[in-house]
Amino acid sequence: MTHVNIDKVDVDARRRAANIMRESILPILRDISKLKPPKLVIPKRTLSNTIFDPEKGILVLGEEVLERNLLDIGETRRFMQTLLMASIIYQALIENEYPTIRDLYYRGKHTIIYKDLTRRHKEENTWDEQSESDSALRDLEVMTGLLREEMLILSKEKGKVVGDMRIKSGPDVIDLSKLGHGAYAIESTPDLIEFLDVNAEFVLVVEKDAVFQQLHRIGFWKQYKCILITGAGQPDRATRRFVRRLNEELNLPVYILTDSDPYGWNIYSVFKVGSITLSYESERLATPKAKFLGVSMTDIFGDKNKKPYISESERKNFIIKAKERDIKRAKELMNYSWFQTEKWRRELQLFLEKKVKLEIEALTGKGLKFLAHQYIPEKIQTKDWID
Amino acid sequence: MTHVNIDKVDVDARRRAANIMRESILPILRDISKLKPPKLVIPKRTLSNTIFDPEKGILVLGEEVLERNLLDIGETRRFMQTLLMASIIYQALIENEYPTIRDLYYRGKHTIIYKDLTRRHKEENTWDEQSESDSALRDLEVMTGLLREEMLILSKEKGKVVGDMRIKSGPDVIDLSKLGHGAYAIESTPDLIEFLDVNAEFVLVVEKDAVFQQLHRIGFWKQYKCILITGAGQPDRATRRFVRRLNEELNLPVYILTDSDPYGWNIYSVFKVGSITLSYESERLATPKAKFLGVSMTDIFGDKNKKPYISESERKNFIIKAKERDIKRAKELMNYSWFQTEKWRRELQLFLEKKVKLEIEALTGKGLKFLAHQYIPEKIQTKDWID
Repeated sequence: MTHVNIDKVDVDARRRAANIMRESILPILRDISKLKPPKLVIPKRTLSNTIFDPEKGILVLGEEVLERNLLDIGETRRFMQTLLMASIIYQALIENEYPTIRDLYYRGKHTIIYKDLTRRHKEENTWDEQSESDSALRDLEVMTGLLREEMLILSKEKGKVVGDMRIKSGPDVIDLSKLGHGAYAIESTPDLIEFLDVNAEFVLVVEKDAVFQQLHRIGFWKQYKCILITGAGQPDRATRRFVRRLNEELNLPVYILTDSDPYGWNIYSVFKVGSITLSYESERLATPKAKFLGVSMTDIFGDKNKKPYISESERKNFIIKAKERDIKRAKELMNYSWFQTEKWRRELQLFLEKKVKLEIEALTGKGLKFLAHQYIPEKIQTKDWID
Repeated sequence: MTHVNIDKVDVDARRRAANIMRESILPILRDISKLKPPKLVIPKRTLSNTIFDPEKGILVLGEEVLERNLLDIGETRRFMQTLLMASIIYQALIENEYPTIRDLYYRGKHTIIYKDLTRRHKEENTWDEQSESDSALRDLEVMTGLLREEMLILSKEKGKVVGDMRIKSGPDVIDLSKLGHGAYAIESTPDLIEFLDVNAEFVLVVEKDAVFQQLHRIGFWKQYKCILITGAGQPDRATRRFVRRLNEELNLPVYILTDSDPYGWNIYSVFKVGSITLSYESERLATPKAKFLGVSMTDIFGDKNKKPYISESERKNFIIKAKERDIKRAKELMNYSWFQTEKWRRELQLFLEKKVKLEIEALTGKGLKFLAHQYIPEKIQTKDWID
């Protein structure tokens, strides 16, 4: 009686993930049965093993691996944590559970009571902080090549989408063009979504939820035939994967619209090449062909052969002085190889020279129609984006 | 060509709001035409004028009003700001714009250049910070009795809903039971939603988006006939209004599920009686009949005639030590008159005595089925909630 809603797609995904997980752990059992000291071989998730692949245009993990040996006393704890996490996930998979990463932490948290070599009573927690259980999960992701979503691990999601397309999620067909003033909140496991039919020419990703709502309300996506998406700030994994699939499977160009500041540029960067600390996700989550539509510094100040989009008096009212941390962040961005293009160098130099930033809302403050019917379509039409 | 999506509901809402706004400002013009010094009469939004109305069960503004006179030099700036905001909103209403509060700030921000009595050149900004434009907006809300949503002012929204009901939003009918693993992201203007038909027995509001996703995925709302909602943390206005309407118009009982800590209890409090600093919204946004379903301290520790929901060893693994700010917050809550019931006093005392808290995820860590098929249904069935 307890399951009314276990979809076939979920069942198939569970079976696949459980099999891969079992296959990854089996060698350890074989080692033990042969009395060989058991070890885990895991790709290194360190910064030094994080490489920008210029061909793919994304961050990837390099070739380095680490060995974690049960019998090496310095590694025993993490070895056990990894296996504990594997068993919790495996159990959740076969028992039709949908854990979150916070859940996984609680599921595994307990105290091991034992006697040491001197027969003294000892206690040790499996893990104390979620950072430890999260780290074990990441090790399993790189070890098995399964993303957490493929293991049916759910998480908080804030991505939204509207547009003229139909999708299948679970047993339902959802028409993303018939959602009124609301939107479709993207599910935690976007790989299980099936794209049915699409009537759109591009994807527009806007950083801010409120601007998404404005563009939706004014009917932007209908008039300009686009799929409109927001990640509501720093995007979560599901939104990134959803955008990537739209680009890869449907061949839709992806334009990203953020504030004109290092925080906005970083959001673009996460969509495009992936996150530096979690580069192993990029192969599935990043959209290397995504383009930065704006707001760019040259939109504010103009450039040779380009008039600025805002007048001098508007600029005076709209721009905000950059903070120390913005300057610092911009200097970091300058070091990333994917910001080493002529246009990005110009952007970052202009920012460091003028030391000001601008929010998208300053453009809607100039009039929502300006943003919707002039700025965005003109930028796309004249290809005034940064790649 | 610029409008393809201006719905009739929006047009009607605009006309109504524009009329009320005009009527509220007209007396000032009449004063001026009679050479009387113009003034605004605005209900006071101070804490001392914020009253808990035990009959309505919500926070309301008292009777106190303030007069703001143009010719009083100490009030001139705020008088002008209020009128500037009124004119921006009025213009947006008649021009089919959908501003956000950040927009309104930018739309009004400019520098007034003038000569003072000694003919010296002077400059003054209409406003410098968004706190000033927000304050002008709030004054207009209490002055006109119009909420910002009724003036078609949009904002970031993070509320989600699923359940066996159909709603009309804009031109579309949306079936909230056919959204796959995703959800319906509630629109900024929930008063414009029409409830078509509903097949549900109660509303369950969960604090955390990830727990919402788990309960949705396991089919909780289908099996137990409920409308499932999350405000994803501290709820925004649209989510609160949506919940209130479900309770008021459809007579559905509303149960609120949060972490067992002062932050969670405060979320319940905001849903139930309103926010202390913005009490004028409560008349429309609060749900005085909402019940706190859990997680309660007595769920953790038990009580006379009540067994705890978690074992002693689970408790050891799951509970978290309360922080100094949790203790402080709990003591504040004890002073609020709507926490002066026997059950709430017991809760807060137990918290201050044990100085520990518990997250909902600890219960899903015990098994999602435990949360979905035992804890929640049993609590509702045995009426083990706090009113």
